[in-house]
Amino acid sequence: MIKSRAALAVAAGKPLELVTVNVAPPKEGEVLVRLVATGVCHTDAFTLSGADPEGIFPSILGHEGAGIVEAVGPGVTSVKVGDHVIPLYTAECGKCKFCLSGKTNLCQAVRATQGQGLMPDGTSRFSLDGKPIFHYMGTSTFSEYTVLPEISVAVISKEAPLDKVCLLGCGVTTGIGAVLNTAKVEPGATVAIFGLGGIGLSAIIGAKMAGAGRIIGIDLNPDKFEMAKKLGATDCINPKDYSDPIQQVIVDLTDGGVDYSFECIGNVDVMRAALECCHKGWGESVIIGVAGAGQEIRTRPFQLVTGRVWRGSAFGGVKGRSQLPGLVERYLKGEIPMDDFVTHTMGLEDINKAFDLMHEGKSIRSVILF
Amino acid sequence: MIKSRAALAVAAGKPLELVTVNVAPPKEGEVLVRLVATGVCHTDAFTLSGADPEGIFPSILGHEGAGIVEAVGPGVTSVKVGDHVIPLYTAECGKCKFCLSGKTNLCQAVRATQGQGLMPDGTSRFSLDGKPIFHYMGTSTFSEYTVLPEISVAVISKEAPLDKVCLLGCGVTTGIGAVLNTAKVEPGATVAIFGLGGIGLSAIIGAKMAGAGRIIGIDLNPDKFEMAKKLGATDCINPKDYSDPIQQVIVDLTDGGVDYSFECIGNVDVMRAALECCHKGWGESVIIGVAGAGQEIRTRPFQLVTGRVWRGSAFGGVKGRSQLPGLVERYLKGEIPMDDFVTHTMGLEDINKAFDLMHEGKSIRSVILF
Repeated sequence: MIKSRAALAVAAGKPLELVTVNVAPPKEGEVLVRLVATGVCHTDAFTLSGADPEGIFPSILGHEGAGIVEAVGPGVTSVKVGDHVIPLYTAECGKCKFCLSGKTNLCQAVRATQGQGLMPDGTSRFSLDGKPIFHYMGTSTFSEYTVLPEISVAVISKEAPLDKVCLLGCGVTTGIGAVLNTAKVEPGATVAIFGLGGIGLSAIIGAKMAGAGRIIGIDLNPDKFEMAKKLGATDCINPKDYSDPIQQVIVDLTDGGVDYSFECIGNVDVMRAALECCHKGWGESVIIGVAGAGQEIRTRPFQLVTGRVWRGSAFGGVKGRSQLPGLVERYLKGEIPMDDFVTHTMGLEDINKAFDLMHEGKSIRSVILF
Repeated sequence: MIKSRAALAVAAGKPLELVTVNVAPPKEGEVLVRLVATGVCHTDAFTLSGADPEGIFPSILGHEGAGIVEAVGPGVTSVKVGDHVIPLYTAECGKCKFCLSGKTNLCQAVRATQGQGLMPDGTSRFSLDGKPIFHYMGTSTFSEYTVLPEISVAVISKEAPLDKVCLLGCGVTTGIGAVLNTAKVEPGATVAIFGLGGIGLSAIIGAKMAGAGRIIGIDLNPDKFEMAKKLGATDCINPKDYSDPIQQVIVDLTDGGVDYSFECIGNVDVMRAALECCHKGWGESVIIGVAGAGQEIRTRPFQLVTGRVWRGSAFGGVKGRSQLPGLVERYLKGEIPMDDFVTHTMGLEDINKAFDLMHEGKSIRSVILF
């Protein structure tokens, strides 16, 4: 048993509580990771709010971390003590039907137990006062120490600053990957990105990396336009400035619509607009945002029959163990200018402030340093 | 002026009237075609019923024909008198943004005037008692003679029986093309086809041509299963035989869902089922059917975020002038067993019977012989 400082989600809607939990040693096929840094993402806030129907309490949230392997359990061969790693909420076993398909990153090897807040053997490694605490997204990075399946960590370069590349554990990879992996944007393409938070800005970085010719950022808050333009947006649009529906505005602006669009908010009406601003004949729209429980997207089928394509993307279609090390290398080469995304850094003791800043729209990413 | 026997759609909801219309000679870039045969398709019935918001009357319907070029207008270079042709409701100019994109068959060269029931110069070639009659879908094949833009005919082999290959002018190409062109089904794939009318049966042919490993046909009418199995369906399912939603039935039957599904009905609820029976991670659903005016498709965005793709297909994604001659060749080689689709043949004078048979569900295709 290791003692670990952690931020405990005791119940939906309550602030996190700072506690010292017990962390059991890694079992077979598991690794113990000491977190160096973790981002605070909207999905953590979504679960904490109680709106996530799959939220389980008490649990340790957090899924955008980076750390160092402290111990490995029996049978672990691909990870060793001292390795720098990014925890993966989407594992990569390399053996399941999904991994072998060559068509998706959605490995299902540990999905069932992960969804139940448990390790693959059906138990938890966290406890407090003798009572088990649930894991979250298989990562639980709001704890100094966490235990993960071997297949749920990506080993990365030791040169990478962990307080920055932790963002590749979720938001930045999600946005870049949706552009490069899911949509496969070609050089010269016209792209629309709805929502200029961390995911949307990352999608702009991805579009720039892909060589897109025109990158249109859309947001209701014009304060976000400066950063978007710095990263590569060629046009920034505020739907409030127009009386026409935003899809019509974009179709008019682009001689028929965009080649690719990305919804980075989680709003089903925006998802519709993102599809409908695509060019007839070939425009593809990718849903990245997570909508509220039970909400539905809708459109006229004519939109699809006339050649538009509706897709989605989870973790940017990125296979964590295979592809994340490469993204870290590209970051180190300066191709992924995400340092400015870290708007606030703080200790774990201030983590509730990070949630407050996010709710106030004042943070792209707060990063917690352990 | 040529006199031409024709079936006139005088108004929505009325039977067609047999008349002799005047057909003006082809103008620049146009050709005069003597129809040998034409299929009667659900889209003709849809427009005649008045449900088609773009329906215009009085007009000459029909869009699934085959015939012989009788005359060409000035400047016509790619078609000559005596050529056997299939009229195209989706032109192929080879020059517009759409044709040049390499991504779609939806040539827009004549679309605007075609939608108004007119030739590209904004006038009609049909008249009766000195009053103009509108064209329909740019083809108007319910007339012994019709005039089309040069870019709206595909020149085909003279060996092909026109009373059979007329079906390649719409239904059969739509079904086969959706599988081969739009979805690009791979050998061994599992496929679900919703609706076993002419389009659905053609999609089965396409799936067989693609080498699909499992082809599941779904229809409420089990009388259609025999033909479906003859063409290559490995399983036929009647949703009435199950209490679970059909998407769940298919997911259970296929260890997680199908690789590709096709909606060949035009029912927005079936479109949803077709998407949701697709395999997580990679399943793609193609909408072929045409829904009623104003109807909308809907689903939870999670369906897309977890890897399913929603597409549509018009005329099977087939570029008529480039690709239809090849399909005719494949028909001549016996690869497209569609002869049984012609359930009734009759003269133009009986065309209203063809509509009756279709409404009664007794016809896959009636073919009118001139």
